[in-house]
Amino acid sequence: MTKKLNVEELLAKANEPKKFAMKYHPFYRGKIQIAPKVPVRAFQDFAVWYTPGVAEPCKAIHKNIDAVFEHTNKSNFIAIVSDGTRVLGLGNIGPEAGLPVMEGKALLFKYLGGVDAFPMCLSTKNAEDIITAVKWLTPTFGGINLEDIEKPKCYYILERLREELDIPVWHDDQQGTALVTLAGLINALKITGKKLGEIQTTLIGAGAANINVAKYMILAGAKADNIIMVDSEGILHEGRKDIKETDQVKWEMCKKTNREGRRGGIKEALRDADVFISYSRPGPGAIKKEWVANMADGAIVFAGANPIPEIWPWEAKEAGAKIVATGRSDFPNQVNNSLGFPSVFRGALDVMAKKITDEMCITAAQAIANYAEKKSIWEEYIIPTMDEMEMFVEEAVAVGLKAMQQGIARKKLSRQSLREKVSSKIVEAQKMTRSLMRNRVIAPLPE
Amino acid sequence: MTKKLNVEELLAKANEPKKFAMKYHPFYRGKIQIAPKVPVRAFQDFAVWYTPGVAEPCKAIHKNIDAVFEHTNKSNFIAIVSDGTRVLGLGNIGPEAGLPVMEGKALLFKYLGGVDAFPMCLSTKNAEDIITAVKWLTPTFGGINLEDIEKPKCYYILERLREELDIPVWHDDQQGTALVTLAGLINALKITGKKLGEIQTTLIGAGAANINVAKYMILAGAKADNIIMVDSEGILHEGRKDIKETDQVKWEMCKKTNREGRRGGIKEALRDADVFISYSRPGPGAIKKEWVANMADGAIVFAGANPIPEIWPWEAKEAGAKIVATGRSDFPNQVNNSLGFPSVFRGALDVMAKKITDEMCITAAQAIANYAEKKSIWEEYIIPTMDEMEMFVEEAVAVGLKAMQQGIARKKLSRQSLREKVSSKIVEAQKMTRSLMRNRVIAPLPE
Repeated sequence: MTKKLNVEELLAKANEPKKFAMKYHPFYRGKIQIAPKVPVRAFQDFAVWYTPGVAEPCKAIHKNIDAVFEHTNKSNFIAIVSDGTRVLGLGNIGPEAGLPVMEGKALLFKYLGGVDAFPMCLSTKNAEDIITAVKWLTPTFGGINLEDIEKPKCYYILERLREELDIPVWHDDQQGTALVTLAGLINALKITGKKLGEIQTTLIGAGAANINVAKYMILAGAKADNIIMVDSEGILHEGRKDIKETDQVKWEMCKKTNREGRRGGIKEALRDADVFISYSRPGPGAIKKEWVANMADGAIVFAGANPIPEIWPWEAKEAGAKIVATGRSDFPNQVNNSLGFPSVFRGALDVMAKKITDEMCITAAQAIANYAEKKSIWEEYIIPTMDEMEMFVEEAVAVGLKAMQQGIARKKLSRQSLREKVSSKIVEAQKMTRSLMRNRVIAPLPE
Repeated sequence: MTKKLNVEELLAKANEPKKFAMKYHPFYRGKIQIAPKVPVRAFQDFAVWYTPGVAEPCKAIHKNIDAVFEHTNKSNFIAIVSDGTRVLGLGNIGPEAGLPVMEGKALLFKYLGGVDAFPMCLSTKNAEDIITAVKWLTPTFGGINLEDIEKPKCYYILERLREELDIPVWHDDQQGTALVTLAGLINALKITGKKLGEIQTTLIGAGAANINVAKYMILAGAKADNIIMVDSEGILHEGRKDIKETDQVKWEMCKKTNREGRRGGIKEALRDADVFISYSRPGPGAIKKEWVANMADGAIVFAGANPIPEIWPWEAKEAGAKIVATGRSDFPNQVNNSLGFPSVFRGALDVMAKKITDEMCITAAQAIANYAEKKSIWEEYIIPTMDEMEMFVEEAVAVGLKAMQQGIARKKLSRQSLREKVSSKIVEAQKMTRSLMRNRVIAPLPE
């Protein structure tokens, strides 16, 4: 366990990045930019990259539309689409206010996955409009990352687009969070000697993240009967008529989970649980020490709220939890979406997958877990950190192979050539960053 | 005059960039990519660029929407929007087939203007849809470049968006071509000692380019009475009922130009003209030597078709033309859109202009012409070439100053600080390119 700072120090630490963010954002005015991907030796080169030379690739694509992947960057362009209705923990702050997040996400996509992602903050909040907008954008993009769109419309938008488009579409707040959580859970269970098919799990918060955590846990072998979900009104069960009217996806969970028909709030939901996974309101104190003490022996705690977890890790430990994960980078076991999306897209794009299936996501989770296990896991290392670059390669390769196996890859590659492709794109992106910093195209941080 | 190669050699030369284009496009698979604009020293930096730090800029923008320009790259992001209905001289080849052009354009925007432009090829061809799509995209973008959209809808789309949005919107095939043509014409008239207010002009082709050439010539002082336009059916006049039904913008020209009511085809239209400007079908032989011989003394010829001009320059010269301009880089006096759009946007963005007015475009034309004149103009140098970088700076500064003068700039800057800003952005973009080439992030051209 990390050295136990006092609470004030921890809160101060949580605030540090905010101070720097307000200083550095206006200094750089944007976190991504456009760069050439081709040489420009002299102005004559533009006769090849632009008119008159460019007419030939245009004609080739007009003749065979699939040639667009050969002559352009479409296969590596993805759009980060948001309407700004559910940005981080900030809620419906609008598309302009969401842009710093989407630019940051684009930066992560490039640096960690070699993916050229472009922020696309839309001024409409209507679900059908968002679907239409994305469809109009598809000639340019090889993939779509939905981001920070409120529920319940986010479920519908994702479902429609996954069905109707033949490029990868995913919603990071659903699949991304669930995938990385599952990765951590897989290893936590190995350490505690419990089995996914046997555990009793409590999911606190019934938003996009936990709905998908439940879905992926079940797909990976957990029993729906043994999952209990809790929202702001209490435990989900078949008597929750308030949900039936407003959120179909959540209502499905009322019917599917909690076979014993337990009632009550978080306290009751945690009784005898092997695992709790919370994606709800920032703490601390949202989950009490004594409630954790009532969990089963060897309890596993995922307190995912940011920046302040629902319970401080040392409190959970004092209450008997064996493994504690949070969303913070200054505690062990950070459940971090950035371990997921860059590699999932890298793998999907490199085999030109038509979709990102749930099976590809489960495979990604297993790849993350396996990577950590090979390095040897223990209570304070159930999941890799962002600087373990080899993990990103392993994960992307696993995702690409799964897509081929499922018959949704347009491109067949051997494991070896897929690995080389994936690896070179990630290496290049980081080389580019260093090169731009060294040559001061990217200015050093201000004093 | 350039050494007179034979026609086969010239045709071969025109085909060279095509061969290289088909070799290099699939090698690089895309001409632009995303690059970081901020340092990434270690993974801890992502806590500033992304969650949790990024929440602060988000909140600041939520409080004051204009702060988006301060905390993001919105002020330098523009979208290159096309539906692929009129790509180069290739016609309606579709949005995918248009993507190589839009990527090439984005490369030019960055290299020549330091503008971060992103291709946005849309899968809808409906005018209202295109307008809606652009409006949905505005939270992300500080400007819109419409490209390769067919007429007559391109006029309507531009007009609606210029009216309804408060960011720069322009259509390069209209304003861009017209602006650069006007720049060349201004200097050609200086050399021949003729005056814009007195010349007789024949415009061959009545598409988006020449409609706007006419508009800008008139705005700059030419008399509409003394302009004769010709389309594929002959000279435009008030008896052209075929046009009245189909193209309102062209019909306006039927009423406004050709006061003498001349009838006939190109031959008749050219008689006694001081200037002809042709943006029509590729030649050669579209315009005959003997027709040029019937023009006034000291005739000025703009044969703009690509890659083969409507008449070869030496033929026009032999027929008595004093000055000949084409769209080709291997003849003198290339009328090249790339002299316009990068600087117009650079200037407009740096003062955060709400529009790109026609006056800003005329000013840009004058700045281009003045730059060449200062270097000393003659028959074979009426307009600068793409490698005269200082021209781009002069032009952008002129555009920005004009916007401030017209009261449509959100930002007031002195000429000196505007110049520094403009200049540093262009210098940085080229430095970035060299740096990426030197460090082999951009691979050398294949053998």
